[in-house]
Amino acid sequence: MAVGLCDFPNIPEIKGVKIGVAEAGIKKPNKKDLVIFELCEGAAVAGVFTQNAFCAAPVRLCQKHLASSSPRYLLINTGNANAGTGKLGVENALLTCQVLAEQAGVDVDAILPFSTGVIGEPLPTDKIVAAIPAAFLSLSGDSWRAAGTGIMTTDTLPKGSVRSFEYEGRAYTVAGISKGAGMIRPNMATMLGYVFSDIAMDTSLLQKMLKEVVGKSFNRITIDGDTSTNDSCIAVATGKAGNEVVTDVASPLAQAFLTAFTEVMQELAHAIVRDGEGATKFVTVEVQGANLVSDATKVAFEVAHSPLVKTALFASDPNWGRILAVVGRAGVEGLDVDKVQLHINGFEIVRDGCRSPDYLEKHGQEAMAPEEIHIVINLGAGDVSDTVWTTDLSRDYVTINADYRT
Amino acid sequence: MAVGLCDFPNIPEIKGVKIGVAEAGIKKPNKKDLVIFELCEGAAVAGVFTQNAFCAAPVRLCQKHLASSSPRYLLINTGNANAGTGKLGVENALLTCQVLAEQAGVDVDAILPFSTGVIGEPLPTDKIVAAIPAAFLSLSGDSWRAAGTGIMTTDTLPKGSVRSFEYEGRAYTVAGISKGAGMIRPNMATMLGYVFSDIAMDTSLLQKMLKEVVGKSFNRITIDGDTSTNDSCIAVATGKAGNEVVTDVASPLAQAFLTAFTEVMQELAHAIVRDGEGATKFVTVEVQGANLVSDATKVAFEVAHSPLVKTALFASDPNWGRILAVVGRAGVEGLDVDKVQLHINGFEIVRDGCRSPDYLEKHGQEAMAPEEIHIVINLGAGDVSDTVWTTDLSRDYVTINADYRT
Repeated sequence: MAVGLCDFPNIPEIKGVKIGVAEAGIKKPNKKDLVIFELCEGAAVAGVFTQNAFCAAPVRLCQKHLASSSPRYLLINTGNANAGTGKLGVENALLTCQVLAEQAGVDVDAILPFSTGVIGEPLPTDKIVAAIPAAFLSLSGDSWRAAGTGIMTTDTLPKGSVRSFEYEGRAYTVAGISKGAGMIRPNMATMLGYVFSDIAMDTSLLQKMLKEVVGKSFNRITIDGDTSTNDSCIAVATGKAGNEVVTDVASPLAQAFLTAFTEVMQELAHAIVRDGEGATKFVTVEVQGANLVSDATKVAFEVAHSPLVKTALFASDPNWGRILAVVGRAGVEGLDVDKVQLHINGFEIVRDGCRSPDYLEKHGQEAMAPEEIHIVINLGAGDVSDTVWTTDLSRDYVTINADYRT
Repeated sequence: MAVGLCDFPNIPEIKGVKIGVAEAGIKKPNKKDLVIFELCEGAAVAGVFTQNAFCAAPVRLCQKHLASSSPRYLLINTGNANAGTGKLGVENALLTCQVLAEQAGVDVDAILPFSTGVIGEPLPTDKIVAAIPAAFLSLSGDSWRAAGTGIMTTDTLPKGSVRSFEYEGRAYTVAGISKGAGMIRPNMATMLGYVFSDIAMDTSLLQKMLKEVVGKSFNRITIDGDTSTNDSCIAVATGKAGNEVVTDVASPLAQAFLTAFTEVMQELAHAIVRDGEGATKFVTVEVQGANLVSDATKVAFEVAHSPLVKTALFASDPNWGRILAVVGRAGVEGLDVDKVQLHINGFEIVRDGCRSPDYLEKHGQEAMAPEEIHIVINLGAGDVSDTVWTTDLSRDYVTINADYRT
């Protein structure tokens, strides 16, 4: 069902990162639903997390550990989000960290825990604790696909991305994995995303870059407008490439890394949309001609969230009046509707706030037919723009989410 | 498909109001899609309209006429919204007003025009103009059901409501009709609602009351969060009951009217939700324990709009974690998640921010099974509350809106 989602790429070993997977049987049998990343000593680790006030227990604990220590392990389970679980949830998350810390011989706050799955049910710690030794023993450098598969919930395919670049004769790799595929409107982070590089970089610079790049990737995608309780995005720089630690964002190496990092993060974010629950379209909503970025962002997200626009996209129906209606209700101050323009996949649909004189129904049908839809709305005010990526709303979205727990 | 929607009631003649209907054949044949209300001279008329910047041509003209004159006729068509149609749209709306004004022998600004249907296509004025004489000739006092049926678009049933009351030996009636059934998140008004009474009331008081009551009825319902370009709600007081003109909101007669008016408006608003596109549930979302009404309203609407909550409602699945997740992302400042409580249909589901110790899955299933769902969220902060009404999100919603234009 995924729209134009490429095969999981061939990700090479990244020095300083090892991956272990095991079957804990949390929700379904025959699934390696427990994933561990081992990071070398001295790796720089940055993270951004959900802004949901009901953030899950592992998110709270992860933030605490990240602030107090040098992380050595990421411990990830699917099948249970350990959210809405109160004090017990935090105790349970801590318990799983303790077991892995003991196994690995590190302090408990060197473990960053992550959970995704059903909200509100107690974490089955016994199953996770029982599977930790197997995951630990399986640690190796080349289990990227297994990790991508291990963190899936309703995703239909594992999601990975990789870029390599050279600088002054030295090779660098940036690679990561992500998962969706519903409750997706990240706010400072996505459901789960992990990106690793062998570059040596100062932690605070990595954190700054992560925040900026999230704003151009995971924070610009939406499937259903529902911000998860568990969104977490982690960036790791192991430092094993051998370069001097990068501290200056303006340095050529930092900029080369930023380019590769942005591409990987966008590809991972787009992959979540392409595999969005029930998705049959990959939709880019670009708003131009705004006075403020906040106006452009607001209009783009409102269009991306409108059930009426999304069902029209599902039907490949050029019901562009619904898009105008959303632009009109989005709350842009001083909007002059007579200046609004709309293009879909290159066809001019709306000029000066109403149907283009050259528009024919067959243009609309041709514009809406492909799997990839690019909507360009020009507000005719300033020269600021923003872009978000989303899906259509299909019968299958309803079916998947109606049947999720059964 | 409508959920618990009563039969169209028996509405008696209201002195000073006559109704005409005719078949204009705007979108579909064999449908009386043109409705005229004739109001007696001196009737007080109040109106509230969509806040959508892309408001339709008839909305703009209606507001202009309402401000400048004493309305004598409401002219309503379905099948075409005359929205996103620019200058030509306003000219077209004016033309239909002119034809009716000539026929009736009144000034053109005594005509209030209303349109609902597909956005962005030119109004077929020839069809409407041709049907106006037939509608005019059919004017009578008892065509309420025909009017309710005439203004329907994707509605499956006509919607009407009536209340009568006595005061100092004199009888009064309040009655109205409304239509939905998609693009429903009114903002100061609903898609189309018309309420009439024989009471004599000062126009500015009627306008004040309308605004207040809309805030408790049409502005507290949502189906898909999409505010229409054509929302209009009109209240008429013909003055034929024979009372002295009511000017004081505190008078007993004003208060008796307000009660009946509120009941009629709420019943009409609820009817839109009960007949919401694809609806299988009628859902009341009540948020208590807020510090600010705006917090309560925000949380209630966010819950009512969440596709994940709505699909769980469709499935009768007690996936209450999704409700907590929405409460957490709604942006309530200073929210203490450990104080949040949740009841569904009387069952305690969440206490102190996590699953109630007494909760069993079978309670959740019992709570979610009925067609009528009452969700009560207590934020545990202040003592302010608000309530909105909505539907679930079904496969049929997607089908109806994917196929709307075909």
